[in-house]
Amino acid sequence: MSDLVLVEQQGAVLEIQINRPDKMNALTDAMYADLVAAFKKAEQSKEINVVYLRSSGPHFSAGNDLADFLETEFNLESNVVQFLLTLAQMTKPVVAAVNGAAVGIGLTMLLHCDIVFASADVKLSVPFIKLGLTPEGGSSQLLAARCGDLKANEWLLTGRNILANEAENTGLVNQVFENVDTLWDEAGALAQKMSKSSQDVLVASKLLLKGEQVSDVVQLIKKEATIFGQRLQSQEAKAAFDAFLNR
Amino acid sequence: MSDLVLVEQQGAVLEIQINRPDKMNALTDAMYADLVAAFKKAEQSKEINVVYLRSSGPHFSAGNDLADFLETEFNLESNVVQFLLTLAQMTKPVVAAVNGAAVGIGLTMLLHCDIVFASADVKLSVPFIKLGLTPEGGSSQLLAARCGDLKANEWLLTGRNILANEAENTGLVNQVFENVDTLWDEAGALAQKMSKSSQDVLVASKLLLKGEQVSDVVQLIKKEATIFGQRLQSQEAKAAFDAFLNR
Amino acid sequence: MSDLVLVEQQGAVLEIQINRPDKMNALTDAMYADLVAAFKKAEQSKEINVVYLRSSGPHFSAGNDLADFLETEFNLESNVVQFLLTLAQMTKPVVAAVNGAAVGIGLTMLLHCDIVFASADVKLSVPFIKLGLTPEGGSSQLLAARCGDLKANEWLLTGRNILANEAENTGLVNQVFENVDTLWDEAGALAQKMSKSSQDVLVASKLLLKGEQVSDVVQLIKKEATIFGQRLQSQEAKAAFDAFLNR
Repeated sequence: MSDLVLVEQQGAVLEIQINRPDKMNALTDAMYADLVAAFKKAEQSKEINVVYLRSSGPHFSAGNDLADFLETEFNLESNVVQFLLTLAQMTKPVVAAVNGAAVGIGLTMLLHCDIVFASADVKLSVPFIKLGLTPEGGSSQLLAARCGDLKANEWLLTGRNILANEAENTGLVNQVFENVDTLWDEAGALAQKMSKSSQDVLVASKLLLKGEQVSDVVQLIKKEATIFGQRLQSQEAKAAFDAFLNR
Repeated sequence: MSDLVLVEQQGAVLEIQINRPDKMNALTDAMYADLVAAFKKAEQSKEINVVYLRSSGPHFSAGNDLADFLETEFNLESNVVQFLLTLAQMTKPVVAAVNGAAVGIGLTMLLHCDIVFASADVKLSVPFIKLGLTPEGGSSQLLAARCGDLKANEWLLTGRNILANEAENTGLVNQVFENVDTLWDEAGALAQKMSKSSQDVLVASKLLLKGEQVSDVVQLIKKEATIFGQRLQSQEAKAAFDAFLNR
Repeated sequence: MSDLVLVEQQGAVLEIQINRPDKMNALTDAMYADLVAAFKKAEQSKEINVVYLRSSGPHFSAGNDLADFLETEFNLESNVVQFLLTLAQMTKPVVAAVNGAAVGIGLTMLLHCDIVFASADVKLSVPFIKLGLTPEGGSSQLLAARCGDLKANEWLLTGRNILANEAENTGLVNQVFENVDTLWDEAGALAQKMSKSSQDVLVASKLLLKGEQVSDVVQLIKKEATIFGQRLQSQEAKAAFDAFLNR
């Protein structure tokens, strides 16, 4: 595993840190593979009760690294899709801390986390439509389930930014903290506190909270990915990617 | 088509305007037929990407024109039901701008719009129970899906008014604007901006957002309409209508 | 029926009052049996249109009386489970007024009420996990449906308190009133006002609002209760109960 994804065990918490701050934590194919490995490790380890997902630097994640993304074949076996499927099927609680930009999959991965804390500088968006693309990562249904259909529609059909206040008021995040240090302190402390409960009761609770819907979410992620893959071949998407990469 | 429903194409946006301001835009059987025709035109036209629904004058719609409603046979083929079914099955995005009173179907039609902007003077209600009637237009399920079950229950079981602040906080509307001119400017501009995306990506996105539930919503509208039709024959409803029309 | 559950008919409203204020209205097996009888009376009486559920004293309910709970065999036939099933299957509207502490089933019973008013001193929690237990009373799904998944996850996985402002903002309650006297006045007045509608239209409306989901909720309550019963036998739960009772 490269150092672009850092993994550290702290007691019964596995901290997974996206660590490519010089690129706003844009995610490459190799990083998705690392994330899959990290989450699978957390899921399988008898020592780990809770995952704490964060990133380093001023931004959570700018989303897909577009240049890398275009060099990688996209299908249901792709690491990006496998990452979403792995995260969606975790039976252990995942606490996420999000700061700065959280774009595209930087937001949609949060839909599969159980508790999401944010800092006041957070700026989230799902701008797939600006690239001629359709919703992915379960966002076409899970964003409405979390925040109501009107906000989900607006965010996905316009791609506009969502700031801290709106994110908190709509339930897109649990709570907003004044600055990023407080965010990381509080999210880390919550993960530690939760991890004191037994793995049995944490998993049994999460299965009740999420269990029945997991197979639907898996199907949804695959369905969205299939349509997303078709859209990637459209002239509209190709022109949008060109414009973005050559800006 | 009469001038009670105005239809105007502006670029790739079809603006549909309820235009009976001297009657608070109360809706007649003939107007529902006009609305069906207008939405079907938008759906079928290759030139149209987005619908912008608004009304003229100080109120969005007082709901059914009760005198006209009582003169028209009510069943699943009625224009009012066909209007709701047509709107619920639109595959192109619908942006609505709502100001002043939005009563009964004046609110329930908004449950089938994708983005709803409101002005600060908005006053919404679903007072079916005050007429001895039951929820219609999908409101028995869609209001709770959008705003939570407790608010939906209260609004439908008491028929009380919902003002701008509550509408915004509960997600019944996307955003509230200070006055009606700003509302119309902003809603129109959003529709124009959205319409710059291709029809393909807009429709594919909306199908993901709404597609799977559409057949359930169609069944729900029909089920509610059947019960609503039975309630219309009740002594309670007849007495309530009499009291209303002779007030 | 003991005086630990008071039942009083006021016009077409049946007021059911939890009345064990010296024990913070902690609920015993006998009280659950009384509550089942009271709700069944309301459901069956042709004179009753609406139920008004409240409690006496400074707290709504501290939840299960743990000492009593441990002396009672727990299974799907237990009075506590039968109470939840009875409440979930009511076809007449239930208005609840909640003040002070509402813990465990003191909160989960509210998920089956149609309208919930609260006072500013309300302090709700679902601290099952602190006792090594899993969500009950439908809370694993209904809390997320009412308030969004992130808040539901956090409340159930940490057991922390929910104060009035958060309860109102997340839709866990309809409205917060400044003090308990205003709460009881307003909730009682609302129940009376609602009860002026006919039983037919109230029941038909509630069936549309809740009907389709009731069988799912019944299955969910049973599933949760089965897992809850297994957790009660765990060493973790036994140790937590011991610590609580000997504190």
